[in-house]
Amino acid sequence: MLIDALQCGEFDREVIGELKTNGYTCVTPTLGFWEGTLESLDEIGRWRDMERDNADLIRIVKKADDILACDADGKLGILLGFQNTNLLEDRIRFIELFADLGVRVLQLTYNNQNELGGSCYEDEDSGLSRFGREVVTEMGRAGIVVDCSHVGNRTTLNAIEHATKPLAITHANPASVFPHKRNKSDDVLRALAQNGGVIGCAAYRNITPANACASVDGWCEMVARTVELAGIDHVGLGTDYSHKTNDAFYDWMRRGRWTRGVDYGAGSAANPGKVSKPDWLLKAGQLASVEGGLKRVGFNDQDVAKIMGGNWLRLYRAVFG
Amino acid sequence: MLIDALQCGEFDREVIGELKTNGYTCVTPTLGFWEGTLESLDEIGRWRDMERDNADLIRIVKKADDILACDADGKLGILLGFQNTNLLEDRIRFIELFADLGVRVLQLTYNNQNELGGSCYEDEDSGLSRFGREVVTEMGRAGIVVDCSHVGNRTTLNAIEHATKPLAITHANPASVFPHKRNKSDDVLRALAQNGGVIGCAAYRNITPANACASVDGWCEMVARTVELAGIDHVGLGTDYSHKTNDAFYDWMRRGRWTRGVDYGAGSAANPGKVSKPDWLLKAGQLASVEGGLKRVGFNDQDVAKIMGGNWLRLYRAVFG
Repeated sequence: MLIDALQCGEFDREVIGELKTNGYTCVTPTLGFWEGTLESLDEIGRWRDMERDNADLIRIVKKADDILACDADGKLGILLGFQNTNLLEDRIRFIELFADLGVRVLQLTYNNQNELGGSCYEDEDSGLSRFGREVVTEMGRAGIVVDCSHVGNRTTLNAIEHATKPLAITHANPASVFPHKRNKSDDVLRALAQNGGVIGCAAYRNITPANACASVDGWCEMVARTVELAGIDHVGLGTDYSHKTNDAFYDWMRRGRWTRGVDYGAGSAANPGKVSKPDWLLKAGQLASVEGGLKRVGFNDQDVAKIMGGNWLRLYRAVFG
Repeated sequence: MLIDALQCGEFDREVIGELKTNGYTCVTPTLGFWEGTLESLDEIGRWRDMERDNADLIRIVKKADDILACDADGKLGILLGFQNTNLLEDRIRFIELFADLGVRVLQLTYNNQNELGGSCYEDEDSGLSRFGREVVTEMGRAGIVVDCSHVGNRTTLNAIEHATKPLAITHANPASVFPHKRNKSDDVLRALAQNGGVIGCAAYRNITPANACASVDGWCEMVARTVELAGIDHVGLGTDYSHKTNDAFYDWMRRGRWTRGVDYGAGSAANPGKVSKPDWLLKAGQLASVEGGLKRVGFNDQDVAKIMGGNWLRLYRAVFG
C-alpha cells in the first residue's frame, strides 16, 4: 500500500503509468487551485475521460474499499481533490453535488484568504468564518476530506475544533523542523492528532529541510521527527510532487487571477521560480524507496505500513466510508 | 400507476401532498427553462432539500425500479427534468455529470433555437446541429431521456433518426387534433412510434381542443385519437399542469433573458396571459379521473394501464434502466 495524498501538475498516460508501475496504490491529483464551478466541472469531466481512456491503468476511487480493490488488482487509484473551495461559488448545497460527482478532498483555502477563512500567507488570519463553519460541517456530512495544508494556523485550529470527522493536512511539514509559513506549528499538529487527523509529509524543496532533500534516509528522518510530534497514527505521505509543470503552470498556481503583480508562493524574491525536486525523488516512482528508508531510520513493519498508506486509508474510511 | 411526464410551476409541500394523496406514482417537475449551469445546480440543490424536508412524501427517482418502489410504498416519485439544455453551457462532458446528479430528462430546445437545433416557434428549423447529434448520442449513453416537446419538427425527426434509445415528447398533442406550432405532425408521431418513443398528452388549454378541456371524457377521446396515430404502446400522460404560477413565472418562462420585447409562448396577442385550466383538471389531483375516462371511451384495463404510466415506465427502463 502506497498512498500519496497530494500531487499536482499535468497527469497523462505516461505519468499514471509511472506511478502504477512503481507501486502506488492511490494518489490525489490537484484538479484545481483557483477554478470556479464551471472550470471545476470541466476538470472532473477531463478525469472521467482519463479514466475511460486509461481503464487498464487507473480507477477513480470513491470509497476506501475502492482503494483496497486497487491494492488487489494493481490499478492506480485516483482520489479527486481540489486545493481550494472556489468550486463552491458560495453555495453550501454544491458540496453534496460535488461529492456525488466523486470529489473527496477540498482544501479550505489555497494561498489566499477566501469566504471560509485565512490562508497561511495572510498577514492576519481571520479564523474560520461563519460560512467556513457551515462548509466544514457539510463536508463532514457529505464525506469530503477537509484539507488545511495551505490554511492559516488559526483557521486550521478552528476547523479542527469544529470538525465532526478527522481532518487532513495533506502536504506540509512541521514548522519546528523547517520554519516556513506553509509548515505547521506544534500546537496545530497536536490538535490534529487529537482530532484523529493525518499530516502528509511533503517533499517540495521550498518547505523541506536540505538534508531531507539530499537523501531518502534524510527525508525519513524528517518523517520520524513528525511522528514524534503528531504520533505514529497521524503521519502519512503527501509529497506535493509536480508533474510536467512549466512557467505557465507556476504563474497560474501563484498568481491565478487575483493579482497584477508578482507572487512567489512558497518561494521568495531570492528564490522565485521552479525549484528542483529532492535528489532522491527526481522521478515520482522513486517514492517507493521511502519504505526502505523508513525501516532504516528505525520504524518497524507495522509503523511503516501506517506511514506508507495505512493512516490515510483509516482517515478516508472515517470520512467517506 | 399514474405517471405525469411533465408539470411545471412552484412545487411545495402542499402541492406534492396533493399529488401523493391523489394517487400519483411519479411526476417530472420542470427544474428550469433558461437557466445555465450554476442556476441549474442551485435548483438540483433545492430539490435535494425538498426531498430531505419531505422524506415522508417524496423520493427523487433515478431508476425505473425506484418508481416501482413508489408504487409499492405510496411515496411520490420525482423525476428530475429540465425543459432546455442551457445547463450544459456547451459542454458535452456535463451530460454525464448531470446524469450523476440525478437529472433524467432534458428537452433539446425550449421555445428558442439553441446550439442543438430549432424550436417549434422558429421561422426556420435548422434541424439537429453537429453538437445536437453529439448531445443526443451522449444522453443515450448517460441515460437521460431526450425530450422534443418544444422542439421543431425537423430537428425532432433528426433526433429520432440519430437516437440510440427511445425518445420522448413529454407534453404535446397531435397537430391533426388541434393545429398549433407546439403540437406534433402525424409524421413525427409515426417516427416516434417506430423509435419506440412515447408522447405525453397535454392538458394545457393553449394547445388542447375545447372539448378536451370541457370534460375528462372529451380529453380521453383526444387520447384515443392520439393512440390511433401513434399506437397504444406510445401514448402516456404529460399534462403540462402548472402549480401556483404568477405573472413573474410566465414572464420568465416566455421572455427569459432573450428579448426586451413581448413573447406569448403558446398564447397569442389575442390571448396573451395565463389561461384557465381544463374544467375537469382545476386541481392536479383530478388527473386520477382519467383512468375512469379512458375506460368509458373504450380502452380495456391493459391499455388503460399503459396510458396511465406503463408506457412511460417502459421508456424510462429503456433509457436509464
